[in-house]
Amino acid sequence: MSPQNAFYAQSGGVTAVINASACGLIETARQHSDKIKNVYAGRNGIIGALTEDLIDTNQETTADIAALRYTPSGAFGSCRYKLKSFEENRAEYERLIDVFKAHNIGYFFYNGGGDSQDTTHKLSQLSESLGHKLQCIGIPKTVDNDLPLTDNCPGFGSVAKYVAVSIREAGFDVASMARTSTKVFVLEVMGRHAGWIAAAGGLAAEKEGDSPHIILFPEVTFEQDKFLAKVDETVKKYGFCCIVVSEGVKNPDGKFLAEAGTRDAFGHAQLGGVAPVVAQMIKDSLGYKYHWAVADYLQRAARHIASKTDVDQAYAMGKAAVELALDGKTAVMPTIIRTSNTPYQWEIGYGQLKDVANVEQKLPENYITDDGFGITSACETYLRPLITGEDYPSYKNGLPDYVTLKNAPVDKILNTPFEI
Amino acid sequence: MSPQNAFYAQSGGVTAVINASACGLIETARQHSDKIKNVYAGRNGIIGALTEDLIDTNQETTADIAALRYTPSGAFGSCRYKLKSFEENRAEYERLIDVFKAHNIGYFFYNGGGDSQDTTHKLSQLSESLGHKLQCIGIPKTVDNDLPLTDNCPGFGSVAKYVAVSIREAGFDVASMARTSTKVFVLEVMGRHAGWIAAAGGLAAEKEGDSPHIILFPEVTFEQDKFLAKVDETVKKYGFCCIVVSEGVKNPDGKFLAEAGTRDAFGHAQLGGVAPVVAQMIKDSLGYKYHWAVADYLQRAARHIASKTDVDQAYAMGKAAVELALDGKTAVMPTIIRTSNTPYQWEIGYGQLKDVANVEQKLPENYITDDGFGITSACETYLRPLITGEDYPSYKNGLPDYVTLKNAPVDKILNTPFEI
Repeated sequence: MSPQNAFYAQSGGVTAVINASACGLIETARQHSDKIKNVYAGRNGIIGALTEDLIDTNQETTADIAALRYTPSGAFGSCRYKLKSFEENRAEYERLIDVFKAHNIGYFFYNGGGDSQDTTHKLSQLSESLGHKLQCIGIPKTVDNDLPLTDNCPGFGSVAKYVAVSIREAGFDVASMARTSTKVFVLEVMGRHAGWIAAAGGLAAEKEGDSPHIILFPEVTFEQDKFLAKVDETVKKYGFCCIVVSEGVKNPDGKFLAEAGTRDAFGHAQLGGVAPVVAQMIKDSLGYKYHWAVADYLQRAARHIASKTDVDQAYAMGKAAVELALDGKTAVMPTIIRTSNTPYQWEIGYGQLKDVANVEQKLPENYITDDGFGITSACETYLRPLITGEDYPSYKNGLPDYVTLKNAPVDKILNTPFEI
Repeated sequence: MSPQNAFYAQSGGVTAVINASACGLIETARQHSDKIKNVYAGRNGIIGALTEDLIDTNQETTADIAALRYTPSGAFGSCRYKLKSFEENRAEYERLIDVFKAHNIGYFFYNGGGDSQDTTHKLSQLSESLGHKLQCIGIPKTVDNDLPLTDNCPGFGSVAKYVAVSIREAGFDVASMARTSTKVFVLEVMGRHAGWIAAAGGLAAEKEGDSPHIILFPEVTFEQDKFLAKVDETVKKYGFCCIVVSEGVKNPDGKFLAEAGTRDAFGHAQLGGVAPVVAQMIKDSLGYKYHWAVADYLQRAARHIASKTDVDQAYAMGKAAVELALDGKTAVMPTIIRTSNTPYQWEIGYGQLKDVANVEQKLPENYITDDGFGITSACETYLRPLITGEDYPSYKNGLPDYVTLKNAPVDKILNTPFEI
């Protein structure tokens, strides 16, 4: 069979290491040019496929592709765009197949979270009946660590490391100033539905009194009185209190704390962010001077402090995706299998995409301490290896030397409009 | 003359490298034990001197003192406590002298910003007349880079590097998602009165279209219409817009855009939360989807991404302070003198503390572009060397291995209470 082209797209929120997966995939594909002619990337993810806006990765130098391993964000552009079901929007699937057929694309690689794995699965089921058989491989990516089948998700380990490092550093800062200044520090982190990222902050506390003293998980209903008592107790005991709060923390009435509608000293509504809400609550009830930080995108883009484990695994997932395709597999996703905790060892496996769709891996109950404010040793055993190792990018002029690709377009063949 | 002890205290907001100055000072003092018997550190800064709560640094191991070079925050505790004038509170000065006399302290080293240099100067003027002559040396420290005489302040280069790295990383993130998601990202950084830190964000933009696209300086009065027009133009041109905003930005009526109402011990307004104000303004007027981050303490504690130039200079300032003292100087502060831009070269000088007090080094007008939203090449020439070089701490269990000292107390001699 003459070699076919591959399509690769990045999907959903980007991470510090999704480009490492792209790097692994493209470098591996280039080693098999007898079977994979070219890797076409979707400009801005799946939208690039729908609009026939493909990127010719063969025009990128070996050095630039290698540099993807050290570059955060999505080098080809990503998107938040979920394909509807086949029944609801058949035209989208037909369009994808038309584009892939026109460009002789036989391999579909989709690098994203749960929704993307679902799309990949659907496409694998439909492609042949739509007239163009595709081998469809999902590549796991999510900072939220919420995909099933795989021991952990590439992207998570690096944001976890960023959060743990940051709350340790802030903890040292606050401890040294608490005598006359800030007593309470609140760091808001990502995780709308699962507390994996917040939990990672707990890794910074290795001995009695270490920051963070309190973690607020989306899995634990927020009880204001209990929380304030714990803050007060902590300040009285250690002189200060550092808190990691997940953006997804909810009130007993099921509403996000961030949307609680509190007002500042001037009567202005707080403009989003759970950290200022929590900080103000402490100030109002306990009177402690506070500071708060919202890391937002800084946490998931922080390639400068990426976890080596995470980078290695992200690369390995991209590589394994190509190998699975060349092995004739379809409707699968490479996975990380933990084979040992001490020393940490992992190998690559794969799972069926049909088992991925719509399953969210939440923080297990036994990973949260009984009082709901900390992580257990079981949780630490799971998390610690994922933040281990540093993998610094190279620097130029004092800054990380991240690559911006040429992203040259592939000539259109269909050249027909498609509304998205 | 038999050797006397030295007193060292950290003052005001801590930085990623103030402990590097402590390291330079203590290591150098230990090399001169014929002249400096012991370095006593003030627990929680000058409060430790007033309350006779001194720390015996001789009880720290060589390795732990060396580790200060890699540890952010103030290892002995810092404080926000400004001595009043001698006329207003003579008792404080007399108490300091009593404590120093009792503990045979002949050298006073004060590591802080403008207020601390002022205190050091006053003490140098008063000590002899109060019955105990001190050699008083200031050591520059401030993330705000606002001290005169010195080309730059230790502490600034590292927060500058953090901000430049962060806005570059966030810029990559937003660029890759902007097609369907966030169009505008706002990063709030420190800098109450001077825009040095915000300006440093500008170093991330090395070519047309790079993040950040807009910087809001405290030196430039905020004009909402002009700002919104620039945001809109940027999004239309590049697809996204990244903004660095200084906490000190003011409205045409002279009010901080985000005035929290509370004040710290120095009477400074406590700020925080200008990023959400700016983001909401954009959403309301232009409708763009936004995200914002407030780095807060993360920026000044970020030893993991410290500037090597900054660490080297902080260490050198501590070392030079001891050398100036041993050279018989008093009422002086070691300074950094830039001798060449290309290649960057610097040497150590010193200035008179009388010339430091109450002079704030603001961003020069020619460092800000005519439109008020960016930095000029003159500014870049000044800033670039200060963020250059990496100086990573060692890691253990995936986290920076920062030292916590024993901080053993020196036996009290006066043992009399003093209210602060």
